[in-house]
Amino acid sequence: MIRIGLDGMGGDHAPVETVKGAVEAAALLREEDSICIFGDEEQIRRELENCEYSGDRIQVVATTEVITNEDSPVKAVRRKKDSSLVVGLNHLKEEKIDVFISAGNTGALMSGALLTLGRIRGIDRPALATLLPPMKGTKPMFLMDSGANSECKPANLLEFAVMGSVYMNKVMGIESPTVGLINIGAEATKGNTMTKAAYELLDQSNLNFIGNVEARDLPESPADVVVCDGFTGNIVLKYTEGMAMAFMHILKDKLSSGVQAKLGAALLMSKLKDFKKMFDYSEYGGAPFLGVRGAVLKMHGSSNANAVKNTIMKSVAYVENEVVKTIHDEIMKIAEETEETLYD
Amino acid sequence: MIRIGLDGMGGDHAPVETVKGAVEAAALLREEDSICIFGDEEQIRRELENCEYSGDRIQVVATTEVITNEDSPVKAVRRKKDSSLVVGLNHLKEEKIDVFISAGNTGALMSGALLTLGRIRGIDRPALATLLPPMKGTKPMFLMDSGANSECKPANLLEFAVMGSVYMNKVMGIESPTVGLINIGAEATKGNTMTKAAYELLDQSNLNFIGNVEARDLPESPADVVVCDGFTGNIVLKYTEGMAMAFMHILKDKLSSGVQAKLGAALLMSKLKDFKKMFDYSEYGGAPFLGVRGAVLKMHGSSNANAVKNTIMKSVAYVENEVVKTIHDEIMKIAEETEETLYD
Repeated sequence: MIRIGLDGMGGDHAPVETVKGAVEAAALLREEDSICIFGDEEQIRRELENCEYSGDRIQVVATTEVITNEDSPVKAVRRKKDSSLVVGLNHLKEEKIDVFISAGNTGALMSGALLTLGRIRGIDRPALATLLPPMKGTKPMFLMDSGANSECKPANLLEFAVMGSVYMNKVMGIESPTVGLINIGAEATKGNTMTKAAYELLDQSNLNFIGNVEARDLPESPADVVVCDGFTGNIVLKYTEGMAMAFMHILKDKLSSGVQAKLGAALLMSKLKDFKKMFDYSEYGGAPFLGVRGAVLKMHGSSNANAVKNTIMKSVAYVENEVVKTIHDEIMKIAEETEETLYD
Repeated sequence: MIRIGLDGMGGDHAPVETVKGAVEAAALLREEDSICIFGDEEQIRRELENCEYSGDRIQVVATTEVITNEDSPVKAVRRKKDSSLVVGLNHLKEEKIDVFISAGNTGALMSGALLTLGRIRGIDRPALATLLPPMKGTKPMFLMDSGANSECKPANLLEFAVMGSVYMNKVMGIESPTVGLINIGAEATKGNTMTKAAYELLDQSNLNFIGNVEARDLPESPADVVVCDGFTGNIVLKYTEGMAMAFMHILKDKLSSGVQAKLGAALLMSKLKDFKKMFDYSEYGGAPFLGVRGAVLKMHGSSNANAVKNTIMKSVAYVENEVVKTIHDEIMKIAEETEETLYD
């Protein structure tokens, strides 16, 4: 039995798309599972009605405040005690739900999770991970940290690698996930002080470390998990988005100039839709915030019903396969092996 | 009168494409200008013959050694004294040529230039700058540092901004070039310790600073000059290349599956070629290595004759408009204004 908590007020299309996604997911979940939506009761009930939902697997927990993207993360979490985000995280801490999903303010979700749930023992820096859709390759790639920690110590990258490997193993079913280090050269000696030291730690670990990966090769998914500091990860993530949008724009522009091109474009329409779909994050579910004591998933701010549905479905494996507990166990193993903490 | 020095042995397609590009440029240069190719005399003369070149504006300086991409930069520069790269840089130092262009080992070119020419007074870190072709926007964007310094102090980014602004003004003719700081958020308070401090320095400067730019917006050329540390810059540069290749690959793949798509693709062929051309660096000439006492341009390793020709043509403006001297003057102005050096 999995109880899924959903922030009904976070994201650009909340609560309309959020509720719609929840209703779609409710039809797919097992009978024992349930969804709990946190938010403005009137709005959410109205949307449930609009979706003609009358079942009892979706509950609503009424909250009166909303954290917006304009809110300062830490302040908002401290002041807006009755927001959907804070109440949801409290429910997770009190084990009234098993996982909490939000498309709201990323900073607020992360600092809220950190303040409310705390860190897994042995983890210094929880991190946000994004499953990037494959471009040239055939499998998605786990990018971590994709934005939680703008400054990192080398040992943080080892933690990210451990957490990412656990997730890819437990949730995506990959036997021995490969780990790559994002760097500016293939050789072990390349990079800045931080990446050079991180390389050594990763190389000495029991992880399936394959070495440095260069940005040029990222579209081919060179490893199951690629680690970097959150500054670099955020640049990669946002640039992927920006480039994909630019390419679509250019393509559309080129294909709508001239009669011959228009005819050609018409014939290609279905293929071009495929193309667009390749860069659609919503297919891959949310980004887990790993390292906190609880299952927290961040969805893209512009998530639609499909993204919400996919994230809910993905969250079941996250909870059932005990990702949080496994991360704890793996980190403890490393601490025991080295007979010291990673942060002396 | 401009005397252009060209590394005849550096790059994947040297000396064939290098010589071809030089011959093409020779036909376009003013009568008083000349080109000097450094390299294996026999090979270069053979290629000149193959191009049916018989003029006297291209000279050859015979060298016996070649620095390859496999060579360790500093060692190679120290040991291969008679390489085309080292001899060329020495000619630049001795003012026998006015600019030196190479498609060879980037690290060797940079450390060679640093060792041979030295830094412009007041410049702590010379940096490599790349002119990125516009994607959604209409004008190219100067990315700096794009890989010379994997670790940077905040004041280095101010230097990059000064040097980049001088280049865009003097060589590209932009009146008051806008400067943006690559960061992981739009607000002044976003980023890591380094970018936050760099933001303040840039904000207090007399440059046309427009604030932080996010990676998502880079394809729209949000500023004439965008500055960042060399690690980030290299990630952006290589990822641009990787994404462009991936998009072309996917597009080709999609467009060649099924009869209808093939017919459509045939009708679109010319437009798709345009598309490819947008990501062709060779149109924009080389990447200047700014901050050393001399005009040094790095071409992409895979440069073809067209890229060589364009870089040679661009180098004329670089020399004639006294970029090196202007950088010196601008940096001295800042030092005087603040009555201290930037690196206390």
